[in-house]
Amino acid sequence: MTTWGESHGGAIGAVIDGCPPRLSLSEADIQPDLDRRAPGQSAIVTQRKESDTVKILSGVFEGQTLGTPISLLIPNEDMRPGDYREVQEKYRPSHADYTYDVKYGVRDWRGGGRTSARETAGRVAAAAIARKLLGERWSVTVVAWVSKVGRLAVDCDVEKVTRAEVDQTPIRCPDLAVAEKMIAAVEAARKDGDSLGGIVTCAVRGCPPGWGEPVFDRLEADLAKAVMSLPASKGFEIGSGFAGTDLRGSEHNDEFYVEDKRVRTRTNRSGGVQGGITNGETIYFRVAFKPTATILREQNTVNVRYEDTTIKGRGRHDPCVLPRAVPMVEAMTALVLADHALLHQAVTG
Amino acid sequence: MTTWGESHGGAIGAVIDGCPPRLSLSEADIQPDLDRRAPGQSAIVTQRKESDTVKILSGVFEGQTLGTPISLLIPNEDMRPGDYREVQEKYRPSHADYTYDVKYGVRDWRGGGRTSARETAGRVAAAAIARKLLGERWSVTVVAWVSKVGRLAVDCDVEKVTRAEVDQTPIRCPDLAVAEKMIAAVEAARKDGDSLGGIVTCAVRGCPPGWGEPVFDRLEADLAKAVMSLPASKGFEIGSGFAGTDLRGSEHNDEFYVEDKRVRTRTNRSGGVQGGITNGETIYFRVAFKPTATILREQNTVNVRYEDTTIKGRGRHDPCVLPRAVPMVEAMTALVLADHALLHQAVTG
Amino acid sequence: MTTWGESHGGAIGAVIDGCPPRLSLSEADIQPDLDRRAPGQSAIVTQRKESDTVKILSGVFEGQTLGTPISLLIPNEDMRPGDYREVQEKYRPSHADYTYDVKYGVRDWRGGGRTSARETAGRVAAAAIARKLLGERWSVTVVAWVSKVGRLAVDCDVEKVTRAEVDQTPIRCPDLAVAEKMIAAVEAARKDGDSLGGIVTCAVRGCPPGWGEPVFDRLEADLAKAVMSLPASKGFEIGSGFAGTDLRGSEHNDEFYVEDKRVRTRTNRSGGVQGGITNGETIYFRVAFKPTATILREQNTVNVRYEDTTIKGRGRHDPCVLPRAVPMVEAMTALVLADHALLHQAVTG
Amino acid sequence: MTTWGESHGGAIGAVIDGCPPRLSLSEADIQPDLDRRAPGQSAIVTQRKESDTVKILSGVFEGQTLGTPISLLIPNEDMRPGDYREVQEKYRPSHADYTYDVKYGVRDWRGGGRTSARETAGRVAAAAIARKLLGERWSVTVVAWVSKVGRLAVDCDVEKVTRAEVDQTPIRCPDLAVAEKMIAAVEAARKDGDSLGGIVTCAVRGCPPGWGEPVFDRLEADLAKAVMSLPASKGFEIGSGFAGTDLRGSEHNDEFYVEDKRVRTRTNRSGGVQGGITNGETIYFRVAFKPTATILREQNTVNVRYEDTTIKGRGRHDPCVLPRAVPMVEAMTALVLADHALLHQAVTG
Repeated sequence: MTTWGESHGGAIGAVIDGCPPRLSLSEADIQPDLDRRAPGQSAIVTQRKESDTVKILSGVFEGQTLGTPISLLIPNEDMRPGDYREVQEKYRPSHADYTYDVKYGVRDWRGGGRTSARETAGRVAAAAIARKLLGERWSVTVVAWVSKVGRLAVDCDVEKVTRAEVDQTPIRCPDLAVAEKMIAAVEAARKDGDSLGGIVTCAVRGCPPGWGEPVFDRLEADLAKAVMSLPASKGFEIGSGFAGTDLRGSEHNDEFYVEDKRVRTRTNRSGGVQGGITNGETIYFRVAFKPTATILREQNTVNVRYEDTTIKGRGRHDPCVLPRAVPMVEAMTALVLADHALLHQAVTG
Repeated sequence: MTTWGESHGGAIGAVIDGCPPRLSLSEADIQPDLDRRAPGQSAIVTQRKESDTVKILSGVFEGQTLGTPISLLIPNEDMRPGDYREVQEKYRPSHADYTYDVKYGVRDWRGGGRTSARETAGRVAAAAIARKLLGERWSVTVVAWVSKVGRLAVDCDVEKVTRAEVDQTPIRCPDLAVAEKMIAAVEAARKDGDSLGGIVTCAVRGCPPGWGEPVFDRLEADLAKAVMSLPASKGFEIGSGFAGTDLRGSEHNDEFYVEDKRVRTRTNRSGGVQGGITNGETIYFRVAFKPTATILREQNTVNVRYEDTTIKGRGRHDPCVLPRAVPMVEAMTALVLADHALLHQAVTG
Repeated sequence: MTTWGESHGGAIGAVIDGCPPRLSLSEADIQPDLDRRAPGQSAIVTQRKESDTVKILSGVFEGQTLGTPISLLIPNEDMRPGDYREVQEKYRPSHADYTYDVKYGVRDWRGGGRTSARETAGRVAAAAIARKLLGERWSVTVVAWVSKVGRLAVDCDVEKVTRAEVDQTPIRCPDLAVAEKMIAAVEAARKDGDSLGGIVTCAVRGCPPGWGEPVFDRLEADLAKAVMSLPASKGFEIGSGFAGTDLRGSEHNDEFYVEDKRVRTRTNRSGGVQGGITNGETIYFRVAFKPTATILREQNTVNVRYEDTTIKGRGRHDPCVLPRAVPMVEAMTALVLADHALLHQAVTG
Repeated sequence: MTTWGESHGGAIGAVIDGCPPRLSLSEADIQPDLDRRAPGQSAIVTQRKESDTVKILSGVFEGQTLGTPISLLIPNEDMRPGDYREVQEKYRPSHADYTYDVKYGVRDWRGGGRTSARETAGRVAAAAIARKLLGERWSVTVVAWVSKVGRLAVDCDVEKVTRAEVDQTPIRCPDLAVAEKMIAAVEAARKDGDSLGGIVTCAVRGCPPGWGEPVFDRLEADLAKAVMSLPASKGFEIGSGFAGTDLRGSEHNDEFYVEDKRVRTRTNRSGGVQGGITNGETIYFRVAFKPTATILREQNTVNVRYEDTTIKGRGRHDPCVLPRAVPMVEAMTALVLADHALLHQAVTG
């Protein structure tokens, strides 16, 4: 999978190569995932308006994938580069303006260009295909939700959360009581011109045992890379994660038992993966996202001539990226799993 | 870089392709890193004796790299497959015995075969070359240390810890007071036939700004993948990590300033990377390792015929993988950085 | 570089990742190469009308490449799927209809779908960027021409042929006398409803010594793969090629001498590459293209139900692919060289 | 697959990653192919003595592949670097001495180092595994033979030649009458201190339809790359190849018919591949090898200080590489086909 596109260029898109043939596919399979990622859905996310309408340009014929590259195009619409003139001159703190300039010697300063979270629309669109493949061929489902916003955290059952529960509120936390508090916290941050971070938890259910590779391409390694490539992500932990380091081996190990002729584990601190390979239990992991870097407050910074100055965020922004990070995490997860499903098929037939 | 080898086969090794020519190199550059990873160094790690002597079989001529593939070989020595007969029959909890069997339908049960941490010797050897390249060409240094064992944690200055400080004690924690307690905790766990997990922190200093890629191959994504491919790793966080989700944007952002005509940040919650690309500040991250799965206690499990049974660990084992994880984390970090250094050079000349 | 698109889908395109930043670029740099490949340019090629207008959708800002992926889009225009109804039912001899069906179980029968030479428009567009990079950074030029059509062959000086000479006639053979005969031969074949094959020769001048890799990715290996991936290509030979097998070593070897402090060879049977690496002499090679498979004559074949039947070509077609193969060969050559230039830069700085 | 090793280093070898598990395998499966490639087998090849004994170091357990990387090691034995002292100072015409020096700034001058055909022993060893996989899983056989030496050519039936016929004579041409003349020609060249080139033809039988990829990784493109990566190869043609450019489409097309419910072609000018994908007919192609560059005659050249000088070949050499090229071509072919078999399995299940 390849994505391309800047925040304020003509369009963004993705090319998926290697999708199996004869998967039924149309724009209607992709658009809903894209809509979940899109800005402007509620008061608590950026008001930038993008209809984010995807078009399939190749690889599908008479409603079926051909096995050839699938090209997806999403036109950019609501472009107000005027909002970003100041950014042309100054490096925004904790954004990638400076690092891009120092690396490339050139930068598309309109809306963050390639560094914009808008780039992830291409990933989400592509992943809708991976998700469909996983569901139809292997009955694998991927569901993610917001489990922490600022200091408000919740611990939901990774075996049970449904997408319907997640989408009950714009904050995408399935616990309604906590969700309400989270929404209030985001509103408060927005009024302050400030922002919040948080955590997305993701669960993959129904994955057969045996997917994954033993060493460099362990499933958890590929998952970590995939979600750590999302804008604003700062951490990844699978199964017991960092908290598991408090335990002794005798407390942490997942004992095996047999159920219906299948090998199961009584606990699941492994997070569904052992030695890089799925064991058939639910895969679950958590991804930390920092508070949005754009805030509507004055901050110290430097300009492109390396002089000290100040900058104050303008324009529309997300006071909290978490609700929109949910479909992004699901997308990256589906892409990794679909890749491993095909790789497993290659080697073991 | 490719590694190969099972725990109890004839040898293990690595092949490094793409190393620049004219780097001075001999076994003496590699052996010290390998010795740090080797078992049997102190009472608190596994007593398996492996001299782990590396031999360069190709790619080096008259003390210089040729630009051709470098093949490294480490013979296996202390093989007691008899220790593992029970493993042939039963799946050890939280090991990869079951997942390998279900994936491949065949398994080298001697010492965990390919899943053994012994495989990492090849990576450590290969990474010694990457580390030398980073040091000589770009003055980049990589240093890691144990920052948590069980519930004992320490917060060292990522700008200052040296390898000499790390190696003062066998637990590889640079804070001597805490190190002493950690050693006692590991000893206690060992006496109980139990094990401990913990955290390794790693710092990369001197990295020039501009290394890394913008989207899928962000530097932090590649670092996450690299360390999450190590046996027993359960989590990765860079910069402010999971704790950073408690902060607001106004607290979290790293303000820029100019110092000696260089762009610097006053704080470093970004962890040296912004938008996937280094900003010239110290890169630092933490890696969680679960408690060793092998414990000398009886546990419930199933056998290869899918019948419930019990197993009790035998043989030599590490009650705490952390000290030996230090050179492994350094190794994976050096490999990722060297790759990105060369990639950066490819594109920007 | 990735291309996508079927002959009769909504559009075709290419995504180029890894292009260095700050290369000046606009559609005007790409369109001329695309126009050379386009159908409908003269009486001797297919009359399918495609304006083949390229649009840059990303990766370029204010006339400069950003270092981010460049997405190129070429809308499909002159679609007459009705011309291809018979192809839906029957496998055209020496086309890929049968092999696609047997591989994928589904096929876009409109104009050959992905197998159409139309796919190469994306490659030619992408390669225009590679060509610009090669010219501006290293003064490397790539020029190809038709050296054989049917049984009419010509032997031009690989050191001297210019693009202007090539484009003097629609057949793209720089020898005007032979070109005239070739054009007559193509006309005659067309009147017969038949087709002709031939050979394209390609020369790369100004390439510095040292590009290429020693073993699997030898420059000649990558060139061979690149041109053998073009539709209808059946052979590749570099330097002395097949004819060189007639010679003895003493006749074939290229003796070295020194000229202006540079190492030169008196002859160039090596074709500018020794041991997979350029030696600074002109790289030249030849590519065989079979006669166009589509002919306006009745042929025996089978249908999709595996019954014997006959088919007769209809619609517009190229009686000779050679003139349009010229820009395709140049394109693939430029892409390979640009890749190797960047790879060389990665390793040797 | 990765190979490593210089002609006169400690050893050479290969690592094969991605081999399916549960293939029965031992050194005895590999050694015969290696013996066919080895020097010193007859008067007409180099007298360098190498027993070329392969050892499997990993990836195989109790006679079965594990699915983990297979490491193969072949120690170097008959090292007489003294033979090559002159090469340290002077660039041999049509060898890679100069290009390596200019690329890497360092060179292993002993026996050509990495450029030596000795490197191919690793490929031949690795390919023996690919060949076994192809044979056992899909009943695919690969056989190559010498079809031209100097000006002596033979045209054998690609459907019928067997390995036993090929190995009847040391020249590996299955036509005994021509073989005898070829041997005499090689002897004559050797007496003259000269060398001969020639052509190897290769046939792949039993390949199911559907293997291969449509665009960049067409099967013929990968075959071309694979064999053009062999030392001394100068050309590749598949099916009708260069000679096919003499024909008209009506003469060249392969008409389809049905036989035993299978789609067949009456002729096979396509060479078993259409649109990059196998059609079930025999795949056949030809590879041109130049006359050995090392000759025992004085030639003009330059030294490492860029001064004109002369050089005269010494030591043992192959007056004709063709017999030993036969197993090399088979090896590269088997590797490509096994890769495509697994890739096909990945996508189409």
